[in-house]
Amino acid sequence: MSDTPRRRSGGRSARQSIRKNAAQETSSYLTRSISPMEVVSDEGLSTIEYNADTILEEIGMDFSDYPSALDLFKNAGAQIDGERVRFPRGLCREIVTSSAPSTYTHHAKNPNRSVEIGGNSMVFVPAYGSPFVRDLDHGRRYATIEDFNNFVKLAYMNPHMHLSGGTVCEPVDVPVAHRHLDMIYAHLRYSDKPFMGSVTAAERAQDSIDMAKLVFGAQFVEENTVMTSLINANSPMAWDATMLGAAETYAKSMQATMISPFILAGAMAPVTVAGVASQTLAEALAGMTFVQLVKPGAPVIFGSFASSMSMQTGAPTFGTPEPALVLYTVASLARRLGVPFRSGGNLCASKIPDAQAASESMSTMLPAVNAGANFILHSAGWLEGGLTMGYEKFIIDADQCGLLAKFVSGVDLSENGQAMDAIRETGPGQHFLGSAHTYNNFETAFARSEIANNDSFEQWEEDGSLDAAQRANKIWKETLAIYEAPEMDPEIDQKLLDFITIRKKEIPDTFE
Amino acid sequence: MSDTPRRRSGGRSARQSIRKNAAQETSSYLTRSISPMEVVSDEGLSTIEYNADTILEEIGMDFSDYPSALDLFKNAGAQIDGERVRFPRGLCREIVTSSAPSTYTHHAKNPNRSVEIGGNSMVFVPAYGSPFVRDLDHGRRYATIEDFNNFVKLAYMNPHMHLSGGTVCEPVDVPVAHRHLDMIYAHLRYSDKPFMGSVTAAERAQDSIDMAKLVFGAQFVEENTVMTSLINANSPMAWDATMLGAAETYAKSMQATMISPFILAGAMAPVTVAGVASQTLAEALAGMTFVQLVKPGAPVIFGSFASSMSMQTGAPTFGTPEPALVLYTVASLARRLGVPFRSGGNLCASKIPDAQAASESMSTMLPAVNAGANFILHSAGWLEGGLTMGYEKFIIDADQCGLLAKFVSGVDLSENGQAMDAIRETGPGQHFLGSAHTYNNFETAFARSEIANNDSFEQWEEDGSLDAAQRANKIWKETLAIYEAPEMDPEIDQKLLDFITIRKKEIPDTFE
Repeated sequence: MSDTPRRRSGGRSARQSIRKNAAQETSSYLTRSISPMEVVSDEGLSTIEYNADTILEEIGMDFSDYPSALDLFKNAGAQIDGERVRFPRGLCREIVTSSAPSTYTHHAKNPNRSVEIGGNSMVFVPAYGSPFVRDLDHGRRYATIEDFNNFVKLAYMNPHMHLSGGTVCEPVDVPVAHRHLDMIYAHLRYSDKPFMGSVTAAERAQDSIDMAKLVFGAQFVEENTVMTSLINANSPMAWDATMLGAAETYAKSMQATMISPFILAGAMAPVTVAGVASQTLAEALAGMTFVQLVKPGAPVIFGSFASSMSMQTGAPTFGTPEPALVLYTVASLARRLGVPFRSGGNLCASKIPDAQAASESMSTMLPAVNAGANFILHSAGWLEGGLTMGYEKFIIDADQCGLLAKFVSGVDLSENGQAMDAIRETGPGQHFLGSAHTYNNFETAFARSEIANNDSFEQWEEDGSLDAAQRANKIWKETLAIYEAPEMDPEIDQKLLDFITIRKKEIPDTFE
Repeated sequence: MSDTPRRRSGGRSARQSIRKNAAQETSSYLTRSISPMEVVSDEGLSTIEYNADTILEEIGMDFSDYPSALDLFKNAGAQIDGERVRFPRGLCREIVTSSAPSTYTHHAKNPNRSVEIGGNSMVFVPAYGSPFVRDLDHGRRYATIEDFNNFVKLAYMNPHMHLSGGTVCEPVDVPVAHRHLDMIYAHLRYSDKPFMGSVTAAERAQDSIDMAKLVFGAQFVEENTVMTSLINANSPMAWDATMLGAAETYAKSMQATMISPFILAGAMAPVTVAGVASQTLAEALAGMTFVQLVKPGAPVIFGSFASSMSMQTGAPTFGTPEPALVLYTVASLARRLGVPFRSGGNLCASKIPDAQAASESMSTMLPAVNAGANFILHSAGWLEGGLTMGYEKFIIDADQCGLLAKFVSGVDLSENGQAMDAIRETGPGQHFLGSAHTYNNFETAFARSEIANNDSFEQWEEDGSLDAAQRANKIWKETLAIYEAPEMDPEIDQKLLDFITIRKKEIPDTFE
């Protein structure tokens, strides 16, 4: 569509194109056929692993206000000193490698949309956690449940988003204690892609599981993973009761958790790449060990989120080289550990979807893809260090994900890929436009951007000199205009609604 | 500067910062300490090499209107059939590997700015060849010699551009046949960085050499490389007399040439990655063989420029995954051949420095860097498929080059890099801002973008809600405002001016 004139936008062909994309059952996740890039030697990685074990053994981790975790660790052989837990060298690695699966299936409501997590698989997931949203028409404002539903619908319609996401934005018009119910409902009702559960309290995790059971069936949920949820460490070297409670709740039901140190280097970790990597590994090992002790074999992802900071103002910065180096390094560490790896994706500090946003985003996204990350959170929509979810940014980012999907398929070295017949047929000084090989391959030869304008300057000017954000603005509106919800058994829908009604009565409607 | 408030722009501190950058003698080129990424297996690369030899042996290359090339090839053992040259399998590889240097020094007028080309070295070079320029104030217009001089000055002042470039834009207000004189003068007078010579005719190449001799000394130029010039193939599988003439002229004086197949896949080569790679290798081998036959040991770079095309309109497209895969593949082929490799850099189809431009640019630039390209042409300024050189785009791109310079330095695994003392000192739940390690490292901890705005949303809004292009607009104006030419002996300057005066009288001032 990049080359079909934008003036057709809003017309029948554009709508057909979007619908066709949404319906497209190419693949519900990506399978890489290129090797991951490595930036640290095996020897260097061993040093970092040694240091992580030193942190675990000598410094230890705090597990606050969660006595059952201390009991589990004690029984496994760790030293407990108050809330500080110190792990004998190698213990965490042994526990994780002996029981955590290297890959798992995250089931979707629509079985065709289930995804594999780990190994050579890769999924793109919308951004997570912004209190604000932004679009070209209304600027920046607090997010509402309508915005939340919109992003669920946009991710459902977009062929390059493999998950529906989790807290795609914070619906701040809904009481905090009720939000998770409306969010999980949106993922189950307005999409049929895999989704992420609530983590802001153990009971909200349980509500997420209970709602999933209404749709997937109770037994299915106890035996299969239908949610992968984000568990952040309270870096440095600390875990809090909220996250531990959610992680325990999910693990007990065999639901997957992403154990993610969240590090602003310089504040929550040292300013150096190797320092951040060692600490990240230590924290992730401790968190994954907790999950494996709660329920051996429960799926866990080794997560990493690292940003640099402005040493002048302390503001987090994105798209800088140091977090990219951390990403490559930690991905290698996860591979050596044999567990799936999660990173950030299209991260940026820019407030608007401009060149800064795109440069910064690609400076995390390409490393994530090249490093072989399995679960790329924040793949679409992220602005302003995660404070804002952008409608146009979502479309621009997802478009890039589509291009990267083609990239990871690698180089086709079949007879057709080698194209020697085409070269023989054409010969010196001739053009390939008319060759049989070109004709036979042109439909799939090149990945197409929906956002890029490749028209002549004159045509582009005649069409209004639009920039990428303005073109994206049209696309998200068109997409929402033609959105149709996936089918759902009305009885199941009613059960979900009844569940929500009951729980909202039970839970005080606080805004904290 | 990203974090110093933008309202200081134009003030003393901003000027000092730019001046400091220009004077900074950190390193005149980059040395990678990370391994290149590979996307094709050794077996796959062997297949592509075999196919390239098949093209050279079976199909051959046309060398038009250049009888001396045919003689050289015949004497070396090739089969000549009219202007078609067919090479016995392995002949070109043998000639290139036996005499072309794997690395060479490209000397600058200022010896501190000389660069190494090849091996683990990497240089960023401004964009090349645009007839138009663009800035936010005046939009798109034909380039003039004033624009040309401006870009030479901007590259001189920018610490992230390692070369002054070549035809940084086409000064269309100067007669075609005189342009090269003014362009070479600008590189020699307004900069002291290494530069590229004229290639649009053998005699213009000779003028470039003669002017360089006035500055470097005749003997120095005959014995050392002071120019690296761009020789494009007339793809597919053809070389024309203009480029061959320029290449021969430079080679005879031991000046370096970049032998660059210029391929719009689908038009000048097959639509597949492996097909483009095989043909690129065949063409580059033939061109480099020509240079080595003219002058064994003359420095050559294996160049590659590949774009995809819109199969709807035939327009070239950039930032797509297929050219990135070509780039990685061809870089591996060059490495196996043992010659330096040149790729494109911040390429885009976008007409303006928006999110499209940045996404597309990073989608070539990061592969170029990861693939270990030695000479990255079009690293700054390129817009609209190369039709336009953008002032703001130049600043935005060069800024990204600065971040990538830090990236390729890799992960510091020294004691200080490992930062275990910082982790020990800080401990669980504490922050690292006050640690001695943070204090000792904060100045160099994180590469800083001059373009990125990392202020709070409120601060950014108060400062005018500027986008990246608007911030870049201020920076290039500030830079030109404080530009000071490097020193030059007035006698040498006069000799250059006299040479130009004489040549302009001798050469008809045609505009074709």
